[in-house]
Amino acid sequence: MGDWTVQNPGTIAVAGASGYAGGEILRLLLGHPAYVRGELTIGALTAGGNAGTTLGEHHAHLLPLADRVLTATTIDELAGHDVVFLGLPHGNSAEIANALSDSTVIIDCGADFRLADAAAWEKYYGTAHAGTWPYGLPELPGARERLTGATRIAVPGCYPTAASLAMAPAIAAGIVEPRVNVVAVSGTSGAGKALKPNLLGSEVMGSVSAYGVGGVHRHTPEIRQNLSAFSDAEVTVSFTPVLAPMPRGILATCTAPTTVTADEARAVYEKAYADEPFVHLLPEGRYPTTGSVLGSNAAVIGLTVDTEAGLLVVISAIDNLTKGTAGGAVQSMNLALGFTETDGLSTVGLAP
Amino acid sequence: MGDWTVQNPGTIAVAGASGYAGGEILRLLLGHPAYVRGELTIGALTAGGNAGTTLGEHHAHLLPLADRVLTATTIDELAGHDVVFLGLPHGNSAEIANALSDSTVIIDCGADFRLADAAAWEKYYGTAHAGTWPYGLPELPGARERLTGATRIAVPGCYPTAASLAMAPAIAAGIVEPRVNVVAVSGTSGAGKALKPNLLGSEVMGSVSAYGVGGVHRHTPEIRQNLSAFSDAEVTVSFTPVLAPMPRGILATCTAPTTVTADEARAVYEKAYADEPFVHLLPEGRYPTTGSVLGSNAAVIGLTVDTEAGLLVVISAIDNLTKGTAGGAVQSMNLALGFTETDGLSTVGLAP
Amino acid sequence: MGDWTVQNPGTIAVAGASGYAGGEILRLLLGHPAYVRGELTIGALTAGGNAGTTLGEHHAHLLPLADRVLTATTIDELAGHDVVFLGLPHGNSAEIANALSDSTVIIDCGADFRLADAAAWEKYYGTAHAGTWPYGLPELPGARERLTGATRIAVPGCYPTAASLAMAPAIAAGIVEPRVNVVAVSGTSGAGKALKPNLLGSEVMGSVSAYGVGGVHRHTPEIRQNLSAFSDAEVTVSFTPVLAPMPRGILATCTAPTTVTADEARAVYEKAYADEPFVHLLPEGRYPTTGSVLGSNAAVIGLTVDTEAGLLVVISAIDNLTKGTAGGAVQSMNLALGFTETDGLSTVGLAP
Amino acid sequence: MGDWTVQNPGTIAVAGASGYAGGEILRLLLGHPAYVRGELTIGALTAGGNAGTTLGEHHAHLLPLADRVLTATTIDELAGHDVVFLGLPHGNSAEIANALSDSTVIIDCGADFRLADAAAWEKYYGTAHAGTWPYGLPELPGARERLTGATRIAVPGCYPTAASLAMAPAIAAGIVEPRVNVVAVSGTSGAGKALKPNLLGSEVMGSVSAYGVGGVHRHTPEIRQNLSAFSDAEVTVSFTPVLAPMPRGILATCTAPTTVTADEARAVYEKAYADEPFVHLLPEGRYPTTGSVLGSNAAVIGLTVDTEAGLLVVISAIDNLTKGTAGGAVQSMNLALGFTETDGLSTVGLAP
Repeated sequence: MGDWTVQNPGTIAVAGASGYAGGEILRLLLGHPAYVRGELTIGALTAGGNAGTTLGEHHAHLLPLADRVLTATTIDELAGHDVVFLGLPHGNSAEIANALSDSTVIIDCGADFRLADAAAWEKYYGTAHAGTWPYGLPELPGARERLTGATRIAVPGCYPTAASLAMAPAIAAGIVEPRVNVVAVSGTSGAGKALKPNLLGSEVMGSVSAYGVGGVHRHTPEIRQNLSAFSDAEVTVSFTPVLAPMPRGILATCTAPTTVTADEARAVYEKAYADEPFVHLLPEGRYPTTGSVLGSNAAVIGLTVDTEAGLLVVISAIDNLTKGTAGGAVQSMNLALGFTETDGLSTVGLAP
Repeated sequence: MGDWTVQNPGTIAVAGASGYAGGEILRLLLGHPAYVRGELTIGALTAGGNAGTTLGEHHAHLLPLADRVLTATTIDELAGHDVVFLGLPHGNSAEIANALSDSTVIIDCGADFRLADAAAWEKYYGTAHAGTWPYGLPELPGARERLTGATRIAVPGCYPTAASLAMAPAIAAGIVEPRVNVVAVSGTSGAGKALKPNLLGSEVMGSVSAYGVGGVHRHTPEIRQNLSAFSDAEVTVSFTPVLAPMPRGILATCTAPTTVTADEARAVYEKAYADEPFVHLLPEGRYPTTGSVLGSNAAVIGLTVDTEAGLLVVISAIDNLTKGTAGGAVQSMNLALGFTETDGLSTVGLAP
Repeated sequence: MGDWTVQNPGTIAVAGASGYAGGEILRLLLGHPAYVRGELTIGALTAGGNAGTTLGEHHAHLLPLADRVLTATTIDELAGHDVVFLGLPHGNSAEIANALSDSTVIIDCGADFRLADAAAWEKYYGTAHAGTWPYGLPELPGARERLTGATRIAVPGCYPTAASLAMAPAIAAGIVEPRVNVVAVSGTSGAGKALKPNLLGSEVMGSVSAYGVGGVHRHTPEIRQNLSAFSDAEVTVSFTPVLAPMPRGILATCTAPTTVTADEARAVYEKAYADEPFVHLLPEGRYPTTGSVLGSNAAVIGLTVDTEAGLLVVISAIDNLTKGTAGGAVQSMNLALGFTETDGLSTVGLAP
Repeated sequence: MGDWTVQNPGTIAVAGASGYAGGEILRLLLGHPAYVRGELTIGALTAGGNAGTTLGEHHAHLLPLADRVLTATTIDELAGHDVVFLGLPHGNSAEIANALSDSTVIIDCGADFRLADAAAWEKYYGTAHAGTWPYGLPELPGARERLTGATRIAVPGCYPTAASLAMAPAIAAGIVEPRVNVVAVSGTSGAGKALKPNLLGSEVMGSVSAYGVGGVHRHTPEIRQNLSAFSDAEVTVSFTPVLAPMPRGILATCTAPTTVTADEARAVYEKAYADEPFVHLLPEGRYPTTGSVLGSNAAVIGLTVDTEAGLLVVISAIDNLTKGTAGGAVQSMNLALGFTETDGLSTVGLAP
């Protein structure tokens, strides 16, 4: 962490500021205590096609920054900042990272540096593998240590965040067979601001749809990687994403074969998450609703065992843009910079 | 089928007319060709606490019947009709059925006569088992024959309709192991008009929630019964319902272990549903959206095989109130009365 | 009306079939009795950029036509049909109309031929005025006669339909001063399938927005024209459209200064709409909800007088795609061809 | 303001904590700097029928208080706190206020002490007039002074907040005739958690409805009072509330006759709100969306003049639960206690 003060503040750039990830990062930074104290300032806000417009035209909710003009996403614009958040399409991060100083903390909300398996990367993304950075999900065993003081961070995908928090304790404790089924319902902001017909409000409202069915969604290998890290055997993952008519939120229904009781499973989760500030385990018989985590960095988990089917059933809820993207990014930034991990992040959602 | 004419029309009563099932039955009857021709008329519309009010106060969309006054749900009110639809809370049907003439066609949208296994009934519903009636899902092998000319019909639950249509062909063809996982996302009308805080618009909008997790939802044994009928081994069913912010629609994501290819699986489904007027199989790589079946009696199915996970993945979409309740009821009525099975039912949805 | 039979059916083309207006026209035609009997058939379905794709890719709800391939919107494709519906961007209709036979019934869902005032057209649309066709709102005094047997029809805009039905009786009866204020809340399909950021589901859900504020919306002169036709003085119209998070529906809140009582006003409306099959006047103290008219061709109206403010307040609800566009178009087609005016149209909505 | 420190903190009680107003007050308090510093603590959380349950059962989003048990709303429970927020049904506040110490700061989110005109109170609420307290809308001329150090505060209604902020500058500057028309679209949380059929998610989603039409809504006299305070003549107010399918937000479309230009009107508003931290005036040609103020205390205003209709048109957007209720309450508390007015409140909304 730099020796930042009000007189000598650290500066933050956000590339892709007109997108949803960029907007959510800015929303969180505006409430971050170091920003409020003046020790962090918001520098360049860059964009692709939206360069030259004001932030207010894209994020009417960020009133304090409404008049800030977006500049083009170039090395020159991003250079010289202490922290750079990247909210860019996949495949753009490596070039930027190579050009910026090694001491710049780069936090990539894209997928480029998430996967360790180059073959999996190439199969799912179709380009050359850029490498692997510390993975910004501090709640996974070992991750927090790798993030502390890191200067390169790969923020997890939103679905992998929900699914990994749901199943990692059971896999790590060996209480399930390594065959995981995930059906995750997501709000539309997970698809970003791409102008696609199926994302129009008229199409989305009143309808749910499955997509990326059969293991073809790019988050499948990421979930598999996260869970296999804690398993002797490779974990097979069946993942089906479902689009629901709401802007934000992911509800992941995760199952795996088990022979333990619900109480035994609960004990495993209570132990795993006892000290985690952002993971909240619901009491027996209660299950999460995404409406309770909107804008919050919390992951809320409910679980039971279906004894007839012989399955552990874990339901997790996160806000895909907060804990699933920008909140995880800020949490990781806090670790990288030496701030308190929870700074600028809340477990209080906006409801109803 | 009665010898009904415009001069001597058959009469239909709807018990529970102020509820969602009752309203949807009436919506469909108003467009039924026999009603339009005057060969069927709508007689008593009954209700519980809403008796004495007009239908228009509860179903503002049924303008032609807006001024009809609801009467109390009693034997006297229902007696003398040729067809009686029951949209009542569970446990009320047996007494009514016993009191009405054997020749009256009674079509029960409640659960009372769905399950053959008395023990399963008692476990999930907590009351004495009333019996078993022909099951109103004509697309299941053998069901159409049992419904033709029947005078007692148990309309399936909405989730079982979606899940059974999705998985029965695979089970019947023996191309999957009998271990089925169903995660089904439903609109809120499936919960009826009960005044519960979690069903308030403020709570529902912007949020998805899991409930009845771990095999405790009452539709679990019904799905199991439907699928086990075509399997040598008892089928285990893991079923997780999810509530989504939309009034109507069910999207069921169903998986079961398989070793066949996607093409082989598709051939099984094409054969199973080749002649079904209401089941629509999507081409490879396309999956259904509930928005396409709103108000329609269609069940739209997409499927593939996840070869890495070794699972057949079948996605089905229905309108829970139409194909999942009232449409299935009218389809069954058509079979019972000898009408063309598709009369009054459409495969055209209301979109967007 | 052509002498059409099953052996010699009339043929219908729809230009702009992949858009919302085109889709809704097809939805209604599929249920039209003349189509069901085989006396009308659906011929060319044309599109702009979507030519070459199947209808099912754009309108998954139109299952019976899912495999129909869209052709390019050209004179050649449209020529030779008996009826041509145009669901095209403004400014495209005149050229097509000039090229097609005079006996072809052309029903234009665009604005090109709605306004009689060339100056108003040029001010609001910025192009040369194409002319004026009979206006497809049969409920306006005199309109039905002009539509009967017509071969060129201009379908009204959705907002003008809602506002004109709400205020024309009062203006025509002279019970209000000719100063009308309209605030109309619309679902998003009114904006069509244009790929604009503000129409994305993520932006629309959970939010309402005003747009076209201050009299600049193009439907303003159309409302003014409709109401002024029945007034000695030019009617001034303040019109504010509001976008709401729902796919369909318009609720127009219309006011004008009055000195009559609520009962006197009600009597005027009861008389005006006594014989109208698609206008439904609610009893005193009840007001419409757009949810009751989804997919229906009904316009539901509630009214009262605010004695303290000295205003007549009329609330009207329509489905913008049905009565507000395609339903009005089919109703006009019925008049043009000599069918029963209500054929293929319903006053039963899809709810909930 | 008490001399509160971490060692000697001020205590806050919330009556009606399981309701939406209570929940939102707690959401804001959890982020209030004085609470974060430990100078304010949250004491009794009381409820009516929900006494004995945990807060987590009603407000799953308030994780830090999930296990707090609600006690009954009694004088004993509320006594001894330094600040008491009342989120109770109308008519309950006077008795509590009389029983608590004069030095207790009581902030009433109900209507009991809003209206100065006893006759208007009795006409609209049907009970005896309880009195008038300083009105918690600091942006109105003179209000801030009355709130500073106050011990009794009447929080405005949500619609009056939106409408008064929209029209007070114009009325006060005399640039409009005192005839105001307000059509305000609201999310459903404004109706509270009452278990009414028309508030069920199934009814609300996909539909907008007008209610309280014709001047009968209870917020009508409150808007009239607020605006008349700055006018020589009594202001007439036509107010139509519209319910929209979203949990939160109000968009008010307000008009009044004017002869000034849009620039002149804008200058009036710029001057009126130049120093207001929570009122944001949009540039010419832009209008607010409620989605930009969710969870924020901002009121966003856009305006123009419709020269043909001769009307000033002002659109305002607020979050009905934040600026419209609990945010206004906390803003007033800050003034009453001598905190910085903006403490714990944000102009950053949660979007998308």
